[in-house]
Amino acid sequence: MRGKFHVDETPPKYVAIAAELRERIRSEELNPHTLMPSERELGESHGVSRMTARQALSLLESEGVVYRKPPRGTFVSEPRVAFQIGSFTDQLSRVGKQPSAELIWSEIRDLPAAVDAFDGDRAHAVQRLRFADDEPIALETSYFRRSLTPGLFERDLSGSLWHLLRDEYGIVPDRARATVRSVVLDSHSCTLLDIRAASPGILLTRRTFDTEGRCFEFAQDVYRADRAEFEIDAPLRPADGA
Amino acid sequence: MRGKFHVDETPPKYVAIAAELRERIRSEELNPHTLMPSERELGESHGVSRMTARQALSLLESEGVVYRKPPRGTFVSEPRVAFQIGSFTDQLSRVGKQPSAELIWSEIRDLPAAVDAFDGDRAHAVQRLRFADDEPIALETSYFRRSLTPGLFERDLSGSLWHLLRDEYGIVPDRARATVRSVVLDSHSCTLLDIRAASPGILLTRRTFDTEGRCFEFAQDVYRADRAEFEIDAPLRPADGA
Repeated sequence: MRGKFHVDETPPKYVAIAAELRERIRSEELNPHTLMPSERELGESHGVSRMTARQALSLLESEGVVYRKPPRGTFVSEPRVAFQIGSFTDQLSRVGKQPSAELIWSEIRDLPAAVDAFDGDRAHAVQRLRFADDEPIALETSYFRRSLTPGLFERDLSGSLWHLLRDEYGIVPDRARATVRSVVLDSHSCTLLDIRAASPGILLTRRTFDTEGRCFEFAQDVYRADRAEFEIDAPLRPADGA
Repeated sequence: MRGKFHVDETPPKYVAIAAELRERIRSEELNPHTLMPSERELGESHGVSRMTARQALSLLESEGVVYRKPPRGTFVSEPRVAFQIGSFTDQLSRVGKQPSAELIWSEIRDLPAAVDAFDGDRAHAVQRLRFADDEPIALETSYFRRSLTPGLFERDLSGSLWHLLRDEYGIVPDRARATVRSVVLDSHSCTLLDIRAASPGILLTRRTFDTEGRCFEFAQDVYRADRAEFEIDAPLRPADGA
């Protein structure tokens, strides 16, 4: 494998143009939902072809920095919402956005195959679409341990479920173990999230434990790649750097 | 927005077939690099069209569960490497894989625009391709604070840089603040990582602090979406669930 690659260090023109536009957006010279320069304007101002200008805009679109609204043009995206592992409701409130939820389905289910989190217990499974200021941003599929959550489906499932668990069942979330993957979203998720088929997404898989060390929740949540990111604040182990 | 969606709860046939195959792979009935059943075989065994069988395999491919090697067929992927925030070298060793690095470029640079991590100091910037058992898996672009790392480019940059920093400069990594995004990789990254153009990837942006609280590193690393995932073990704040 080694020595196989030879890389030209000069970035292609469209990468340089994209970098310049990205910086103008970051420095807030171009605010969210502002119309970007057109391909023709970019081509003229930078002395490149419309094709090159289009490649620059496509690169920014693939990063979620801009979005297209044909035939009106290309617009600056809102910044991604920075999530930490925790309650969706709490995360949204922290960044000043209004959280809400729409129930898609609820039923008693087994955990997905190969997930052994509830010692064989079944689950109250709930799929909910989560909104930030009325914009769909995540699709959560949560499994709550059935024996710990009797009568869950008779409750109001439109708010914070962790809140509900704490107030009604005495379950206090204490620790989460999560895995983050980059995935291509399936058609069901794309339809609900109101994005193009096969859009990229973040898959968050999570086991949540309460203050008594019980795993009470298994969740598989998908987030729009262009609207969400995850922040991690990690102490480094002494072994790191070795 | 609310009430706009109506979702059929019965998953399409290709989703069910993909789920069955996924479970056989997870349960290790189908080991990594095993040839998967062909579209024709899947169609016959499940009583569906070749088109439906192809959709099932495409879904698994988009998840990174299988990979295609035309004309030989579709094969089971290796499981993703589960990274934690920390030293690449340490992470790989933990999962029993051989880490290595190939230097792509090194030069004195400013930090990317809008990143203010070094109080205006410039950086020793290094781009390295990282391998797991000779397979390219990540492309790291690291900026080390120049005033803390004199003569860095005269050192051997083919091993663990954190190790080098600790042994040669007395810089001990203590804490990292990172952001994880799902992105479409640019052509430079895809070429180096030996994957198709516009493949999905994970972008990890990280600031690393030493035991004296100094930010000594800013890094923008991209990982192959099909070969890497990130694990997070997070204590939940008392406010969570509220």
